[in-house]
Amino acid sequence: MPDALASRAVSLHLAVDVGGTSTRAAVVDASGECLAVAAAGAGNPTSAGHDPALTAITAATREAAARAGVELVEVRSAVAAIAGAGGTAGARLLLALNERLPTPLTFGPDLLGMYLSATVAPDGYVLLAGTGAIAARVVGGELDHIVDGAGWLIGDDGSGFWIGHRVVRRVIAELDGRRGPTALTPALLGALGLERLPTRRDGREDASLRLIDTIYGDTPTALARFVPLAFDAAAAGDDAATAILDEAADLLADTLGAAIGDAPGAPDTHAAPSTHAHPSTPGDHPPVPGRPLVPGDRPLVLGGGVLSRPEMRARLDARITVGNTPLMARDGLVGAAVMALRAGDVAVDDALHRHLTATVAARRAR
Amino acid sequence: MPDALASRAVSLHLAVDVGGTSTRAAVVDASGECLAVAAAGAGNPTSAGHDPALTAITAATREAAARAGVELVEVRSAVAAIAGAGGTAGARLLLALNERLPTPLTFGPDLLGMYLSATVAPDGYVLLAGTGAIAARVVGGELDHIVDGAGWLIGDDGSGFWIGHRVVRRVIAELDGRRGPTALTPALLGALGLERLPTRRDGREDASLRLIDTIYGDTPTALARFVPLAFDAAAAGDDAATAILDEAADLLADTLGAAIGDAPGAPDTHAAPSTHAHPSTPGDHPPVPGRPLVPGDRPLVLGGGVLSRPEMRARLDARITVGNTPLMARDGLVGAAVMALRAGDVAVDDALHRHLTATVAARRAR
Repeated sequence: MPDALASRAVSLHLAVDVGGTSTRAAVVDASGECLAVAAAGAGNPTSAGHDPALTAITAATREAAARAGVELVEVRSAVAAIAGAGGTAGARLLLALNERLPTPLTFGPDLLGMYLSATVAPDGYVLLAGTGAIAARVVGGELDHIVDGAGWLIGDDGSGFWIGHRVVRRVIAELDGRRGPTALTPALLGALGLERLPTRRDGREDASLRLIDTIYGDTPTALARFVPLAFDAAAAGDDAATAILDEAADLLADTLGAAIGDAPGAPDTHAAPSTHAHPSTPGDHPPVPGRPLVPGDRPLVLGGGVLSRPEMRARLDARITVGNTPLMARDGLVGAAVMALRAGDVAVDDALHRHLTATVAARRAR
Repeated sequence: MPDALASRAVSLHLAVDVGGTSTRAAVVDASGECLAVAAAGAGNPTSAGHDPALTAITAATREAAARAGVELVEVRSAVAAIAGAGGTAGARLLLALNERLPTPLTFGPDLLGMYLSATVAPDGYVLLAGTGAIAARVVGGELDHIVDGAGWLIGDDGSGFWIGHRVVRRVIAELDGRRGPTALTPALLGALGLERLPTRRDGREDASLRLIDTIYGDTPTALARFVPLAFDAAAAGDDAATAILDEAADLLADTLGAAIGDAPGAPDTHAAPSTHAHPSTPGDHPPVPGRPLVPGDRPLVLGGGVLSRPEMRARLDARITVGNTPLMARDGLVGAAVMALRAGDVAVDDALHRHLTATVAARRAR
């Protein structure tokens, strides 16, 4: 690896992006050049467990160093972007990692990693909607105010879990006669390999009993896997699926609005928040009273599987006014690299960020 | 026990009412006389676990027999009213009980036990809202159509879990700025011993982080313990609590309406189902278009902690039209006795039901 050897005149930095389904590591240098990228399994200690998380992060880190042809001890700074960094499970994981790795590692918030993957603007906003949902206002390069992200049980409004959860509840309500037919019912039963037969047991339709058993046999967050059913059914004109996605968009707009901080809280009327029927386009975005406003000089970073859907971004666009084009973040690896460089006293400007983004992408494509 | 000995010319029957928090057993005779009642701990195999359930049901049964001065082998029929009787955990528990007990025991649905505790009318309706929520249409003394009861994750609309869950979500939404102030916030934080301090960590209010940690440290259904906070705050005029209870009542009315079967499913508009603002009184109950109607010749049985609240019964009364006075069921013990008597070929008419109800109550009061 003569390139890597030659680069050692410039300091080396290790970035890790720890995710609920996979973990990515990168070795970068102070010029913003990415020397190598490697991936491993789920690294979140809360969802994956302590030992698997420790194994995944260690494996990704060592593999990235090996591919870059560098020893981890040569690394000047190392940062992992991770959810729940400040919690007990995170603290235990950090201690265990620092016993194993020859370079001191620190944790940074995954939400900041996502933001910094898209921009190094000191002030802006980030909204993520994957399995969970969370937003933040970034001030001076730090998370200043976080909204939601309270997890599937008591938060994550408008997230993938939220959508999948609504899909299942709506189907059960059809099966027991509370609600009328929706295309979500055959779609969900089909996805689970369940047939709708005239058989009834103990006052219930057989498919309903089997559906309930199947859902409770899995983890709650597995409900997020039904998100595509909602998008497909809505695209085919199904009212139930459309209502679910519209409400998810309302909730995500509320979450972002609270992060921006200029929106009064919705009143406690019985009805759901009203839809905002004023679409905005990049060329046409006058502030609409009561709608969250992202000023033109502050970037808005969007991320997560739900917001990767154009149909959801269009719904969000109809509910907030954005003075610029939102930036999409695929994950937090580039942002973790920004945090690692900064931890090693390397200033990251727009040019360096662009170089980092391009070289991380190039290493990933190999 | 000379009374019990003298009664053995009449057949003896064993009734068990298996609950999520306690289990009750009664020995009754064919005249509807209750000889003894005994109680033990939680007996639901799904929530309490197989071994504790087995222990509780066996203990309550043996204690009731001992208090009645009868041997279990003398019992002509034995029925336990239990939730999820048809599931795997129920089947395993039934096998284990029949290995231990000298008298053959069968399981009946707890929902039917609740209905039969209040009435032996062959056709009617039952709506329960405790930690969970479920309704059924009873036809010919059997459960003909069950609505909801799909559990806390994907059902139980309007239940105690549902209300407590909404309370916590609403409080978190205030803490992170999505919604305005509600009296539920100081009430919930106070109930959990949390103080609202100006301290912030990682972009969040400290109380919010502690609240989230506390909730995830407990089982999901423990959220039902916050139901009294909603009733208290609503009584004091809090809009957020009132909106939660109003929506719970809407959902319970929808569930009952689907059990009655005359209500069309609510349309999939984005907004929540509208409140029905026509109160009905026992003397003034003309059918209101779109409102579920309980005919005067069919009883409606209500049960569970949420429906034991007059404020919730008043809300339900404003959303359905009932042609008679709803009956309240405290639990399913009398109904289990009806099932046990019927299993022993004893016909249970209104007079026998009244005697059973009175003597079970008298034995309980001792």
